[in-house]
Amino acid sequence: MDFFQQSLILHKKSTGKIQTICKIPLETQDDLATAYSPWVAAPCQEIANNPEKVYDYTLKANTIAVISDGSAVLWLGNIGPQASLPVMEWKCVLFQKFAHINAFPIVLDTQDTQEIIETIVRIAPTFWGINLEDISAPRCFQIEEELKKRLDIPVMHDDQHGTAIVVLAGLINALRVTKKEKKEVKIIVNGLWAAGTAIIKLLVLYGFSDIIVCDSKGIISENRQDLNTEKKEILTLTGMKNISGTLADAVQNTDIFIGVSAPGVLTPEMIASMNPHPIIFALANPTPEIMPEQAYTAWAKIVATGRSDCPNQLNNVLVFPWIFAWALKNKVTKITDVMKIRAAEKLANCVTHPTSEKIIPHPFDPWVVDAVSQAIYE
Amino acid sequence: MDFFQQSLILHKKSTGKIQTICKIPLETQDDLATAYSPWVAAPCQEIANNPEKVYDYTLKANTIAVISDGSAVLWLGNIGPQASLPVMEWKCVLFQKFAHINAFPIVLDTQDTQEIIETIVRIAPTFWGINLEDISAPRCFQIEEELKKRLDIPVMHDDQHGTAIVVLAGLINALRVTKKEKKEVKIIVNGLWAAGTAIIKLLVLYGFSDIIVCDSKGIISENRQDLNTEKKEILTLTGMKNISGTLADAVQNTDIFIGVSAPGVLTPEMIASMNPHPIIFALANPTPEIMPEQAYTAWAKIVATGRSDCPNQLNNVLVFPWIFAWALKNKVTKITDVMKIRAAEKLANCVTHPTSEKIIPHPFDPWVVDAVSQAIYE
Repeated sequence: MDFFQQSLILHKKSTGKIQTICKIPLETQDDLATAYSPWVAAPCQEIANNPEKVYDYTLKANTIAVISDGSAVLWLGNIGPQASLPVMEWKCVLFQKFAHINAFPIVLDTQDTQEIIETIVRIAPTFWGINLEDISAPRCFQIEEELKKRLDIPVMHDDQHGTAIVVLAGLINALRVTKKEKKEVKIIVNGLWAAGTAIIKLLVLYGFSDIIVCDSKGIISENRQDLNTEKKEILTLTGMKNISGTLADAVQNTDIFIGVSAPGVLTPEMIASMNPHPIIFALANPTPEIMPEQAYTAWAKIVATGRSDCPNQLNNVLVFPWIFAWALKNKVTKITDVMKIRAAEKLANCVTHPTSEKIIPHPFDPWVVDAVSQAIYE
Repeated sequence: MDFFQQSLILHKKSTGKIQTICKIPLETQDDLATAYSPWVAAPCQEIANNPEKVYDYTLKANTIAVISDGSAVLWLGNIGPQASLPVMEWKCVLFQKFAHINAFPIVLDTQDTQEIIETIVRIAPTFWGINLEDISAPRCFQIEEELKKRLDIPVMHDDQHGTAIVVLAGLINALRVTKKEKKEVKIIVNGLWAAGTAIIKLLVLYGFSDIIVCDSKGIISENRQDLNTEKKEILTLTGMKNISGTLADAVQNTDIFIGVSAPGVLTPEMIASMNPHPIIFALANPTPEIMPEQAYTAWAKIVATGRSDCPNQLNNVLVFPWIFAWALKNKVTKITDVMKIRAAEKLANCVTHPTSEKIIPHPFDPWVVDAVSQAIYE
């Protein structure tokens, strides 16, 4: 039986992956009188008198919503809210497993930006934080930005920032291994959806200054008439010279390729045109921009992918449970750029002796949970 | 230490009453590959190709939302969404405990009727059913009606229908005990919020024909200039003669008093003015319209309240888990009037030999869970 069938059987048998359970004893009439009628009125009244007490007496203290409109799910694209539900349940499982945070999936029957914002604002009172997931660019940027303004709880679009943080962590160690300097390297980022945009922003913040950017039509530049607001912003941010060309043109003489784009778009010939000891992050899922064995034939020094069957898996499960747990522990209401950079540095430091085959912890090394949580919590 | 403090300690210690847990094994890399990346794509694709399969592969198969805007919470009134959260968590616990249905609380940061409707429609894809809770009248009527039209999943406002069903069940047995006939009895219903309105509608459907109705200003009639649309509808439905007067006027020569109103509004003198062997359902919480011992001094034959420390507790926990479980088992997408009447009859039949002190099962008699579920499932 293949994995596709196995996965269907697993999901069908359990009808989903998460379940709600009761945390308190509930066997006798007294239990019920205390937990419910009439004495449930006690916490209600306390919260009515002092809204902050909702964090003392309810699941809001420790519960995150994982929210999607199903518009950009895995590599499947816009499959709609209900078809995205297995992924959202999965994220909830990981929040619980790694960071002991309750999480509940909410998938939305709208893909209108303003309706999504309004809906999330209205359901926010139940939750301690909001993890946005698999919402397509450029709507995801506006949705996250607006929610951060309007809500007093942490909001993070994981496809953007979870990915950006794990990429920066990997890059920090890749530079250590190759002895390249942040101020000197030339980076090409291919792919300008949610992840690519967030990666570029975080790299610029961290001090990388020479970044060239491609989308599916080639290098973005002032010559291009088809750039939306977000792509124009990236152009300004990277201060890119007014150059044009294809991905193959862009890759020449760079040190680092970061692909969050499409399978197979990077060839060994392109890698051969890069500076010595090139670093290749080929993160398209499930099939990378180039398979590691092919990249090594062109003398790539370090190759990272999103795959669990290759070394250097850059997976945001190393990020999202911890960064929310960190926010929770420190009672912060915004996940800031400073937090993202610190998270990336700490995650990089979890690998004490990085090598070309180990620039990032493996997500399920038994020691990782403790190491990452300790580093992040510090 | 009093119950108020005990309840606070209990709620604080557990930070709420419910928690999400993972239902599938998740210990190895293989577990993760099958349940998540890349093979979570399998159920996603299946659902994208055939939307009905969402019921096979996700928590939607067995998960209800308990939704409130906090506008009519217990006897506390409009305390807002966050202060209502302890009550909503409690309902979720009972769904899980009695009917093994997952339930999750969503409290809404809006009390605008149209916004509530739109929000619930948009978050509906995650859920198999919607239990509306503690939403004030008359908005609750429009919200429920509109959602029933727009959604293809069961929607029920428990304060209305859970209460109406348990009241009808109690009444069926009260008639058996007093040997009164449905076609002959005269009923007074006091209180025209969510519960009162739903009770009257269900009693009329069941065949009670002589019903007089009061709100806080007295008997409703065509003389009254202050009736809203819903109250006018009740006037038409009951075909009330054009009479006016106070509650004391209304109670005279009736057989059955059903109060879903306010503490202490019914006096022994009023009961003394009723027909012989009066049946008193004094359901205001936490303090009834009249305390049972007082009612008995005026020769009440049967007294029921919402209190767990008195006989004949009419509590909708005997209804909402089962009626949803029933809908789930039979894959019905609407909870209809016929279902409500059948549920009331079956619940009444769970008491094989009703007496004046036992017209309804006690919610936490150990045998009740089996008896009610068996009756309802049949």
